[in-house]
Amino acid sequence: MKKDINLTMLMDFYELTMAKGYFSNGMKDTVTYFDMFFRKIPDGGGFAIMAGVEQLVDYLRTLKFDDEDIEYLRSKKIFDEEFLSYLRDFKFTCDVWAVPEGTPIFPGEPIVVVRGPAIEAQMIETMVLLTINHQSLIATKSNRIVRAAQGRPVMEFGSRRAQGYDGAIYGARAAYIGGCMGTACTISERDFGVPATGTMAHSWIQMFPTELDAFRAYARTYPDNCAFLVDTYNVLKSGIPNAIKVFDEELKPRGCRPKSIRIDSGDMTYLSKKARKMLDDAGYPDCKIIASNALDEYIIRDIIMQGAQIDIFGVGERLITSRSEPVFGGVYKLVGVESDGEIIPKIKLSENIEKITLPGFKQVWRLFDNESGKAMADVITLHDEVIESNVPYELFHPEHTWKRKTIENFTARPLLEKIYDKGQCVYKDRTIEEIRDYCAQSTDELWAEVCRFENPHKYIVDLSEKLWTVRKNLLDAH
Amino acid sequence: MKKDINLTMLMDFYELTMAKGYFSNGMKDTVTYFDMFFRKIPDGGGFAIMAGVEQLVDYLRTLKFDDEDIEYLRSKKIFDEEFLSYLRDFKFTCDVWAVPEGTPIFPGEPIVVVRGPAIEAQMIETMVLLTINHQSLIATKSNRIVRAAQGRPVMEFGSRRAQGYDGAIYGARAAYIGGCMGTACTISERDFGVPATGTMAHSWIQMFPTELDAFRAYARTYPDNCAFLVDTYNVLKSGIPNAIKVFDEELKPRGCRPKSIRIDSGDMTYLSKKARKMLDDAGYPDCKIIASNALDEYIIRDIIMQGAQIDIFGVGERLITSRSEPVFGGVYKLVGVESDGEIIPKIKLSENIEKITLPGFKQVWRLFDNESGKAMADVITLHDEVIESNVPYELFHPEHTWKRKTIENFTARPLLEKIYDKGQCVYKDRTIEEIRDYCAQSTDELWAEVCRFENPHKYIVDLSEKLWTVRKNLLDAH
Repeated sequence: MKKDINLTMLMDFYELTMAKGYFSNGMKDTVTYFDMFFRKIPDGGGFAIMAGVEQLVDYLRTLKFDDEDIEYLRSKKIFDEEFLSYLRDFKFTCDVWAVPEGTPIFPGEPIVVVRGPAIEAQMIETMVLLTINHQSLIATKSNRIVRAAQGRPVMEFGSRRAQGYDGAIYGARAAYIGGCMGTACTISERDFGVPATGTMAHSWIQMFPTELDAFRAYARTYPDNCAFLVDTYNVLKSGIPNAIKVFDEELKPRGCRPKSIRIDSGDMTYLSKKARKMLDDAGYPDCKIIASNALDEYIIRDIIMQGAQIDIFGVGERLITSRSEPVFGGVYKLVGVESDGEIIPKIKLSENIEKITLPGFKQVWRLFDNESGKAMADVITLHDEVIESNVPYELFHPEHTWKRKTIENFTARPLLEKIYDKGQCVYKDRTIEEIRDYCAQSTDELWAEVCRFENPHKYIVDLSEKLWTVRKNLLDAH
Repeated sequence: MKKDINLTMLMDFYELTMAKGYFSNGMKDTVTYFDMFFRKIPDGGGFAIMAGVEQLVDYLRTLKFDDEDIEYLRSKKIFDEEFLSYLRDFKFTCDVWAVPEGTPIFPGEPIVVVRGPAIEAQMIETMVLLTINHQSLIATKSNRIVRAAQGRPVMEFGSRRAQGYDGAIYGARAAYIGGCMGTACTISERDFGVPATGTMAHSWIQMFPTELDAFRAYARTYPDNCAFLVDTYNVLKSGIPNAIKVFDEELKPRGCRPKSIRIDSGDMTYLSKKARKMLDDAGYPDCKIIASNALDEYIIRDIIMQGAQIDIFGVGERLITSRSEPVFGGVYKLVGVESDGEIIPKIKLSENIEKITLPGFKQVWRLFDNESGKAMADVITLHDEVIESNVPYELFHPEHTWKRKTIENFTARPLLEKIYDKGQCVYKDRTIEEIRDYCAQSTDELWAEVCRFENPHKYIVDLSEKLWTVRKNLLDAH
């Protein structure tokens, strides 16, 4: 949040009723451990992309109940003055760990871990989830679309259809992390450095007596950035011929080359092939063709397969809302409570087996094959366990425990990094370019089988023997 | 926007390239007319609900390019100093009309109309669309879910899964307009007066040695607001019996009654019936049952049909993201340009017939049957046309023009209200309660056939003869 907007009050009201409950019952300083994790990869994909950590850091930095908040809470008539006074002086003192933005993440893994006084760790629940859920959703979708485009650049074009202002602003950020080359959303460049571009809408064309007049005026205004929207009347009969005419008449004499033409309706495959030929024949093989009408990874994959001559994809509503799966279902669960300095692991049971939580204070390790550089498996361990690189390590399936495999030649890397230490920010700022590059590189470290859109190979996420035992003991006890 | 956040720069970059284009080509003050309208009702419904006007008003009020913005734009190296200086002194001078929030709206109707200098009317496009698209999407979804609940209250619980902070905050506002009884989102009560409530999460239960201890502590803290989450371990064997025990032991002696129990997993229908019986038998027929797990209008309709004993529905991710259709596809199109004081209507053609726009400066009239009070039809007219109530009026189908019908006993009401006059705000503030009541009342004015979830009757939206002729002439000319 560039603007230091105070979002402290963006919390589910039950965080406050519970907070007062902990406060009144002498439990506010009980040290707790909470995990954020998710259960299902959107769109049946093989992995998701972590995003939103920077905004989580900013939120925690600006946590503060101001007078207006206290006044409002007082008006609810269920909070006593002692509690309100605690809130007024609220200071965040937790430790927080998070998986770095841009990292491929898998179901069941803790991606944010919070350790600290119950009352504090509880109250940040809503914002931890909202922040990470939203940006991870969009980064994951963006990454899918970018992979479908097979090296062709993808632009994020969806602001007008986003779910609220932040949906557009942070959505553009997350889309960039996931691999988009830029956005149409101007404010996201100003605030986050996501490259913003744009040329013209149909209204520009309509404002002039003819399409030709509109193109001419644009070419004279932007001879170095000449990009025409060619589908206002008829792409092949009017748009492209007029574009070529104006390239010839206005750009050539100035020694300029056209940038692109954009097709926003009709049959993209057919039109782009015809357009390509017309542009090539006219001496503009360097003029790019941009397509931008209700695209997503499925349509992009399909039209590329059909040989569409599209150089750049503009993707709007289906990216900015992740239309095919608009929910990233991260949850935030209590996994441990300290008592006399000991961590008592906590579990939440459920009749749905997959909803049973993983108890204890944990770390996630990613193991890379030294030969291929590829990620072989993740292992969730207790926080103080260390997996030594190159020391033979036995993986085993947490359900079918007879499935075992010893690996040797590997490098182990812990994924959870500390971002807050006793309430002090220790997050290391990274530029958005660094995050985006790291995302591309980390995605490359996955086997192709995990990256498939249909029936991807299930990436191995195992538990250490110690963690497995903690869980087994708790399950047995219940 | 309670906080007067300046969102001027939340615009597609092409608004700026076009703006400079108009500026450089002597067209910046050309008076233009733009319509916002939408083409398809989400979820195959019979109508949508207009929302977001108040935030549009706030946005227009705070329009301003500050020094940081100008500096950023200068860095793009495509805008000259004259244009940047124009932006620095930018003043909004347009007229704006909007359909009031809470009104049922239909495809093809102008729901926002902007009249003014091309450069200004163009630059606000992204925010007009983003603001109205988002809140109308959520208000429409909320209205569907509320109607499915058939009088049972619906609470909005989705902040943690919203698409960004504003998705949660304004989403809660829109959901309330659509008919929800409140939200879990605290900040939306502070800022918009949407009633916020909440009690406990599973973590509260897990924090105590036993469920019974957790319930006891809560009952002692909130004897007047006692509401228990009963599915942490086992609803029927543990949750409900423990709840009853605590009602008996902690509330009875204090002369308090329990508020509710909440079930958040498992088979809602089965569990709620059993729970109802247990609570009734224990002398708590007034204790409400709240259900809240992955609900939407379809599931709610289904479990009510099966006789579920649920008094209140808590709806989360499927409401706050409108999961089944997360995009409201409003568009903003040039429909007219003034030349020597005359309005030249503009049309955008398309190979997709349904994408052809409706030219001219327009008004929308809703005609109510005097006898039943029900809305019979909407008629889109030229802006200066008046449809007089009770004066026989001939409706005709805009495609099948032989389909004609004369109506007599009716009241006609124009829908578009002026909210800005030459850049001055003339919007009449309404409380959120007024908007919500108006929405409920306006929805009641629709025939039941239009409100069906499956194959709703298509509400009549006709054109006046004058408008029809304007369109026909333009189509013929092309």
